[in-house]
Amino acid sequence: MPIITNVRVHDVRFPTSLDADGSDAMNKDGDYSAAYVVLETDSELSGYGFTFTIGRGNDLCAEAARQRALPLVGQDVDTLLDDLGATYRELASDTQLRWLGPEKGVVHLAMAAVMNALWDMAARRAGVPLWRLLVEMSPEQLVDAADLRYLSDALTRDEAIAMLRSAAPGRRQRLEELKARGGYPCYTTSAGWLGYSDDKLRTLLREAVTDGYRHFKLKVGADLDDDRRRLRIAREEIGWDAELMVDANQVWDVPQAIEWINALAEFRPLWIEEPTSPDDVLGHAAIRRAVAPIGVATGEHGMNRVLFKQMFQAEALDFCQLDSARLASVNEILSVYLMAHKFGVPVCPHAGGVGLCELVQHLSIFDYVAVSGSLDKRLTEYVDHLHEHFVDPVIVSNGHYALPSRPGYSAELRDETVQRYRFPDGQYWLERKAQDLLVTTR
Amino acid sequence: MPIITNVRVHDVRFPTSLDADGSDAMNKDGDYSAAYVVLETDSELSGYGFTFTIGRGNDLCAEAARQRALPLVGQDVDTLLDDLGATYRELASDTQLRWLGPEKGVVHLAMAAVMNALWDMAARRAGVPLWRLLVEMSPEQLVDAADLRYLSDALTRDEAIAMLRSAAPGRRQRLEELKARGGYPCYTTSAGWLGYSDDKLRTLLREAVTDGYRHFKLKVGADLDDDRRRLRIAREEIGWDAELMVDANQVWDVPQAIEWINALAEFRPLWIEEPTSPDDVLGHAAIRRAVAPIGVATGEHGMNRVLFKQMFQAEALDFCQLDSARLASVNEILSVYLMAHKFGVPVCPHAGGVGLCELVQHLSIFDYVAVSGSLDKRLTEYVDHLHEHFVDPVIVSNGHYALPSRPGYSAELRDETVQRYRFPDGQYWLERKAQDLLVTTR
Repeated sequence: MPIITNVRVHDVRFPTSLDADGSDAMNKDGDYSAAYVVLETDSELSGYGFTFTIGRGNDLCAEAARQRALPLVGQDVDTLLDDLGATYRELASDTQLRWLGPEKGVVHLAMAAVMNALWDMAARRAGVPLWRLLVEMSPEQLVDAADLRYLSDALTRDEAIAMLRSAAPGRRQRLEELKARGGYPCYTTSAGWLGYSDDKLRTLLREAVTDGYRHFKLKVGADLDDDRRRLRIAREEIGWDAELMVDANQVWDVPQAIEWINALAEFRPLWIEEPTSPDDVLGHAAIRRAVAPIGVATGEHGMNRVLFKQMFQAEALDFCQLDSARLASVNEILSVYLMAHKFGVPVCPHAGGVGLCELVQHLSIFDYVAVSGSLDKRLTEYVDHLHEHFVDPVIVSNGHYALPSRPGYSAELRDETVQRYRFPDGQYWLERKAQDLLVTTR
Repeated sequence: MPIITNVRVHDVRFPTSLDADGSDAMNKDGDYSAAYVVLETDSELSGYGFTFTIGRGNDLCAEAARQRALPLVGQDVDTLLDDLGATYRELASDTQLRWLGPEKGVVHLAMAAVMNALWDMAARRAGVPLWRLLVEMSPEQLVDAADLRYLSDALTRDEAIAMLRSAAPGRRQRLEELKARGGYPCYTTSAGWLGYSDDKLRTLLREAVTDGYRHFKLKVGADLDDDRRRLRIAREEIGWDAELMVDANQVWDVPQAIEWINALAEFRPLWIEEPTSPDDVLGHAAIRRAVAPIGVATGEHGMNRVLFKQMFQAEALDFCQLDSARLASVNEILSVYLMAHKFGVPVCPHAGGVGLCELVQHLSIFDYVAVSGSLDKRLTEYVDHLHEHFVDPVIVSNGHYALPSRPGYSAELRDETVQRYRFPDGQYWLERKAQDLLVTTR
């Protein structure tokens, strides 16, 4: 009977702002960061999880994760992992921390980090990758793990079980299909950051076409003339049969969004992503009605399952881009997948950042095999950054995520990475501080 | 030209959980707390502000407030205070911190604390209480200070100015009226906490009736039989002409809320407060349709102006209970008041906690004098706790908040209080820790 003996939490930050990687109309200078949780036991078993931020404030998430995880110390590992729904509800029941959201912002990001580590640990204990742990759970087990609180007006427990049961017979066949086609389909955002020059944009798009991609996403929203020039370049490079998506990262009010998107319609985008405040359910619904057939996508800042419930109820979304480190791990993500399936909205998870690709590959496989049973209009984001820091990095080729094979949720960072990029005392940041001092004192 | 020289932030916690003060169906053991910000200058001028939490995690808000406020240090006080809209937008433009919300949770609570301190400082600089600073601002100045981002589909800048202009002629007269009637009307929640015994409930209600109150709020939602018994006691004590409000603190799903509220209809509550998740705009709208004529109230966990915009658009609310320490200070609160006025929804601010009464009295006076011009269905919450810790505490008598007269936002804590209740190193918490150790080691 192993027990949890320790929680270690690290504030790990990468200096991505130096290269304008990840730059968009809202976020010009992100330093991709992870509030990284390691759950240790008195056996060889450990659990690794994180939430993703873009720099300052990552320490807040790390400290919140430490506070969230403290009640786990001293508890029996098997009891915790045999019923991850109960474990989740126990951690969520801290009403003093709940006040700080509720179920949103820093304390919810922290919940994601901690529960991600527990799901990782559960998969490691079973000796399988997380996606396999999930596809081998029964409908009842999955629904017991899901957080259905506040959702019963959109999805009842019985409906959820019935949907999963009806998808159960095809699980094995769909898994074989995925293997045969080389994994789960993805699209790339690597070329389209707003801070890249036209030349760099063109070169990267050309490379991506050569690499077999058929879907490409560009950042828009800072300047309409720039957007039109960049989208023209994109269509020149990818042609008109490939799919082009655009992403405004929340810069517009609702009326402005409608006007701007319609001004880009000639480039035939598949979707407009984050056209306005991520909290604005009714705004997204209004935009969707006004820009059709261009689809509306959002979700990377979708704070919790209650927001997604309303997005589905209001018919506000064509694509659901849930985030694996913002929603409170598999427990809450399961609920969103189940609702999306009921409402007929494809889930195309947000990824990129640091480690999000590593997580979402598991979720997408699970969705296809055990929930939606469909690849129609489904593709998962892929960004070619920072994978070298993971022990079990994604393998992407020919526009597909290969099925991960190692036990766990692929969330473990390499020890050298944590040592080097830990903020503010990792070697990289110490060197950078010394350099900055040098520049300042010259 | 004074400059901001220092930011001091204190994690101040009061042991309210010991007496079940503040207990409800969701929050059984809150320790009312303030993440308390003091902005110092090189003159005698200072600014005091806070956000409110219920215990654990207050340290996260304090640290977030410190990070939020750091850019102010070294800046010219007059420049900051002459255009608090620009100052707000400058602080809000930290996109790395924004990622952690956006505009919600810990980083938004921290924004409230810091901007509250700046508004306090602005009123002190002018030598007037905050409500007077606000009622003496022109329509254009108010709208320049307001955060209207993401709202233009519900309220444009021109509409906002027009509404304020049309209310301007009556300002002086309404102010005299308020003074003549003894201040702004309030209701009391002090009697109705869920953890109180029936006897204590009855005694406190009787006292409140004697004190001149005509509106009383009880916590409900843990057990239907208990609720019915307690509401019967309440009606026995207050009669049927007084108004009774009930508050479920988010415990129900939407269908359950409708069923439970209708089961309490015979006690004729004026409103049901927080029937479900505070994020659920469409859920509140559905509940409202199903429980009329009982009104629906929410807002103490209303995370930002975008949520309130949708509550108004969806006709989800009969009473808007905005929170002075959860919304990002006067800048965001102005927008909510303006929208509420346009949509015809009375604002009855949430108060209680620690210091919220001290803040909201200013807002309510401003609303009556300069925005809504109406007291119909408007009353501000009052809870009789922790006022002794403030330098300029509220004065409530005969069910009215007296108009505060001292310069500022009434947010300054007494020095002795900060010393004694600072967590974990204040004298109270050091003594408590020693006692707990004693008990543990016996």
